[in-house]
Amino acid sequence: MSVEAILQTHPRPLVADAGVLARCVDECGECAGHCTICADASLAEDDVRDMERCLRLCLDCADTCVATARILARQTSADPAIQHRQLEACLIACGNCAAECERHAQQHEHCRLCAEECRRCERACQDLLAALAPA
Amino acid sequence: MSVEAILQTHPRPLVADAGVLARCVDECGECAGHCTICADASLAEDDVRDMERCLRLCLDCADTCVATARILARQTSADPAIQHRQLEACLIACGNCAAECERHAQQHEHCRLCAEECRRCERACQDLLAALAPA
Amino acid sequence: MSVEAILQTHPRPLVADAGVLARCVDECGECAGHCTICADASLAEDDVRDMERCLRLCLDCADTCVATARILARQTSADPAIQHRQLEACLIACGNCAAECERHAQQHEHCRLCAEECRRCERACQDLLAALAPA
Amino acid sequence: MSVEAILQTHPRPLVADAGVLARCVDECGECAGHCTICADASLAEDDVRDMERCLRLCLDCADTCVATARILARQTSADPAIQHRQLEACLIACGNCAAECERHAQQHEHCRLCAEECRRCERACQDLLAALAPA
Repeated sequence: MSVEAILQTHPRPLVADAGVLARCVDECGECAGHCTICADASLAEDDVRDMERCLRLCLDCADTCVATARILARQTSADPAIQHRQLEACLIACGNCAAECERHAQQHEHCRLCAEECRRCERACQDLLAALAPA
Repeated sequence: MSVEAILQTHPRPLVADAGVLARCVDECGECAGHCTICADASLAEDDVRDMERCLRLCLDCADTCVATARILARQTSADPAIQHRQLEACLIACGNCAAECERHAQQHEHCRLCAEECRRCERACQDLLAALAPA
Repeated sequence: MSVEAILQTHPRPLVADAGVLARCVDECGECAGHCTICADASLAEDDVRDMERCLRLCLDCADTCVATARILARQTSADPAIQHRQLEACLIACGNCAAECERHAQQHEHCRLCAEECRRCERACQDLLAALAPA
Repeated sequence: MSVEAILQTHPRPLVADAGVLARCVDECGECAGHCTICADASLAEDDVRDMERCLRLCLDCADTCVATARILARQTSADPAIQHRQLEACLIACGNCAAECERHAQQHEHCRLCAEECRRCERACQDLLAALAPA
């Protein structure tokens, strides 16, 4: 599953290489899904009290990923400053959520999988930031 | 890319078969991405005036897909009435957006790809509706 | 705070009476905020274990309210079937979230306030459903 | 309408003064509504071709406002770096959307009202940034 094919049919020049751009949009979508599920699974765990920070960072990460995917998916009259700042917010959220989920990765498999996805999304945001025109 | 692996680590029973459930959540995410891009590409087309309904239904479909993916991704204390109604709203949005995009599929390749994705998401919602416990 | 003034400047006929429409969009926004805060406050409570269903329904209600506010705020090429179904999903989510928050209203003031807002939003959705053209 | 009362019932210390915090969350919700309506109204205007950048920035601004409202509404285990970065992204989006809407304020009353709301939201984000603990 990828948005790369539809991005390549866009009538305007893309804001970055289609592959780098598509990977970021795809990973933001995937990361939003993983974080939503990890938050929900954490709520059901016996040690929910210890999962408080994990649950909260997963909710934040899902929210910023949804916004970032949309803002980077748009190519028409793109505003570089908005795209840069939103990507920066997203990669911080992904990195901090990953770090917290990694702390629980031995006890909870959903945290291990969520941390891996957050790291992939963090890298995809970094790669796209490096590929965008300067803000 | 799929949420199936992380869904299978959830501590509670899933609301439906993991494969059917994951496909619906995955397709909602993928459909939200396609519709966001199709709306944005339509805005850039020379015949933007004729793309008004397409652009609008794509925005609606993206919004309902984001909400539906989240609500169905959650397994803890799930409420069948909410899940049923949100899935019904989503499959109507996908079906109506697909029908409009199909009208433009010959002129705009992004509409052709978006319509195909909307139809996949519509089917995934129908399949999950059939697999859920009754509301 | 209200979207009524800007709705009244829309170049197209509104899908319903401006006041009824604005109230629904306003209440969906307000309800999304209340439910986000009630879920987060529930996570911090000592009895978080007993707040599981409350927390989860608040997250669902916030998500459907965000989608519903957007879909009803749009007047251009509106699709009655989508608007009806999304409103129905929203009023079910608001009603079920209110019922759960009401159970905790004596112990947690945030649940009391959230339940009140959910009931206002539920009524606003019902009133708009009655005022819309048939799907 | 305001989230201030429910914020004041939160069991944890708020991340900033309740009034400053509530104003930011309220304005983000209000700005998301205004931008959604301004984008939709722009799509219906005869000069839709000239409204391309306005429509696009309104969609971006609505998306970042929704994420920002949620992330700042949460007080439990808040992460200062995420809150700072998301607020910065939001105030850039609001400011750039306002600047574009101001260009159309004479021709389109919805742009005038949307620009005013974006400026209020920009200020509310700036005020909250100044009131937050350092990241």
